[in-house]
Amino acid sequence: MRKLEDLQSLIANAVADLKYPEYPAELYEPIKYILALGGKRMRPALLLMACDLFGGDVEAALPPALAIEVFHNFTLMHDDIMDNAPKRRGKTTVHEKWNNNVAILSGDVMLVEGYRLMMQVRNDLLRTVLDIFNDTAIGVCEGQQLDMTFETSNNIGIAEYINMIRLKTAVVLGGALKIGALIGEADEKDASLLSEFGINLGIAFQLQDDILDVYGNPEKFGKQVGGDIISNKKTYLLIKALELVKGTDAEELARWISLTTFDATEKVAAVTEIYNSVNVRQQAEAEMQAYAEKAFEALNSINLPEENKQYLRDFADGLLVREY
Amino acid sequence: MRKLEDLQSLIANAVADLKYPEYPAELYEPIKYILALGGKRMRPALLLMACDLFGGDVEAALPPALAIEVFHNFTLMHDDIMDNAPKRRGKTTVHEKWNNNVAILSGDVMLVEGYRLMMQVRNDLLRTVLDIFNDTAIGVCEGQQLDMTFETSNNIGIAEYINMIRLKTAVVLGGALKIGALIGEADEKDASLLSEFGINLGIAFQLQDDILDVYGNPEKFGKQVGGDIISNKKTYLLIKALELVKGTDAEELARWISLTTFDATEKVAAVTEIYNSVNVRQQAEAEMQAYAEKAFEALNSINLPEENKQYLRDFADGLLVREY
Repeated sequence: MRKLEDLQSLIANAVADLKYPEYPAELYEPIKYILALGGKRMRPALLLMACDLFGGDVEAALPPALAIEVFHNFTLMHDDIMDNAPKRRGKTTVHEKWNNNVAILSGDVMLVEGYRLMMQVRNDLLRTVLDIFNDTAIGVCEGQQLDMTFETSNNIGIAEYINMIRLKTAVVLGGALKIGALIGEADEKDASLLSEFGINLGIAFQLQDDILDVYGNPEKFGKQVGGDIISNKKTYLLIKALELVKGTDAEELARWISLTTFDATEKVAAVTEIYNSVNVRQQAEAEMQAYAEKAFEALNSINLPEENKQYLRDFADGLLVREY
Repeated sequence: MRKLEDLQSLIANAVADLKYPEYPAELYEPIKYILALGGKRMRPALLLMACDLFGGDVEAALPPALAIEVFHNFTLMHDDIMDNAPKRRGKTTVHEKWNNNVAILSGDVMLVEGYRLMMQVRNDLLRTVLDIFNDTAIGVCEGQQLDMTFETSNNIGIAEYINMIRLKTAVVLGGALKIGALIGEADEKDASLLSEFGINLGIAFQLQDDILDVYGNPEKFGKQVGGDIISNKKTYLLIKALELVKGTDAEELARWISLTTFDATEKVAAVTEIYNSVNVRQQAEAEMQAYAEKAFEALNSINLPEENKQYLRDFADGLLVREY
């Protein structure tokens, strides 16, 4: 099996080799710009990995892998407009560097370019692969819409939240793995199991992200601790805490959420203490563990040599057990 | 051959029958809303017409025809954001009724739904049809970008302008006709000729629109006369006039364009007089005629019974000879 890093650099080189027209410049420059911002290229690497695991031709899987990366960057370009985000990977976002209209239209073109790349598969796989791609794309859009709706909604349950992160971040992992597996000649059953693995791993990964934002070591994972608390982001932790807190703690949590001016450090400390009082960390970890186990169960059922399954287990472990 | 009106109502009924999920409401309500605004359903009707002309099964062509209509409405939803348009077909636009984010994301979903519908063709046509659809979509986006770029550019030539309207409005007619012809079992040559017909007819139609905006009878075509002049829209007439006017007329035209406050009736009268002084109407009509002839030439070369070609000629005549 090829190493993940090798697959990632294969993608990075292929992304760098993608060619777009010069004219109209306002349409294609932003596409080149966002694709050159880098990133781990994890989603397309997963597609190649899945193909490789089933002994498929990784080179043949390269255009669909690029499709996933171009699609992912289309969602980033449009999400950044919607989130009013000034920066992406430390650089100015497209809508800031150009304007909203440019970011809307260049994003639209990227979605179409995604289809063009995804269509570079064998004829006998074309319909199946595009069906998966369509479902993935719709899922991601639904997830983004739910994420926005949740921002202004005060009554989100854990099940709704899990469904949102499944759509927004996990289905694209599942879709990439499934497409890669099919290109690698996996049968429908194994490809679907690998997709299950990816979706559940994705949910577990996002839950871990929620936990790390509050309980992570900032030196280890390079993000400001408590950013989600500061912005009242509806994470697993906040939703669970709102469900569980009673009495003065409930009033106190509601008060911190309602404040428009506050000392950030103080807010993070106070909200974390409320989280601790109802053990949300433990519950989030248990939920994360449950999804990780679902992922491993799906993996165990796949008809692949033990060595290949171990490769996937090691990959998942590397993703999930980031040091706190 | 089926009558155009029958094909249009076939589409209208099928559009009304399209089903979208209830949840998330903010994602799917705007899609239902914009599709219910109506319109002539001309583009999808052309797809069905092309299929019918070659003796194909019109029912089988219905999903791809709907794909063209959904795609077209996706472009309207995003264009309306970019153009900051408050109204569409007399009703509030999606970004006004909801907000920009909703219009961006619902539009994205519509593009994917367009692909889903377009994929409902026979396996042996799938790749070809999607290639045409991709090229059409990219063309429309390029045309919209050029249209926006031209707004703030002072040095647009006629060739660039024709290229812009070809991309923005004509290629989708060509694409719809070509896909319909192929579903109707036309060979590649005839399908391409029909596409040529559609593209050239589309350019002629847009040029006619430019002419009618200034010289049309407002009672006959229901639009305010001179709207393009009032907004300094870069039409064939304005670009040609800027190319031709000399001396005081050139200064006068430049002055009217630069004014931010003015009497609309006065501006329309003054600019029209300058247009008349360099005969831009005659030149626009000649250009329109040249594209109409190109359309008819392509049509004449198609391997179809004379009766079917006459049907297309009548259709084109009905489209182009709107009474001034």
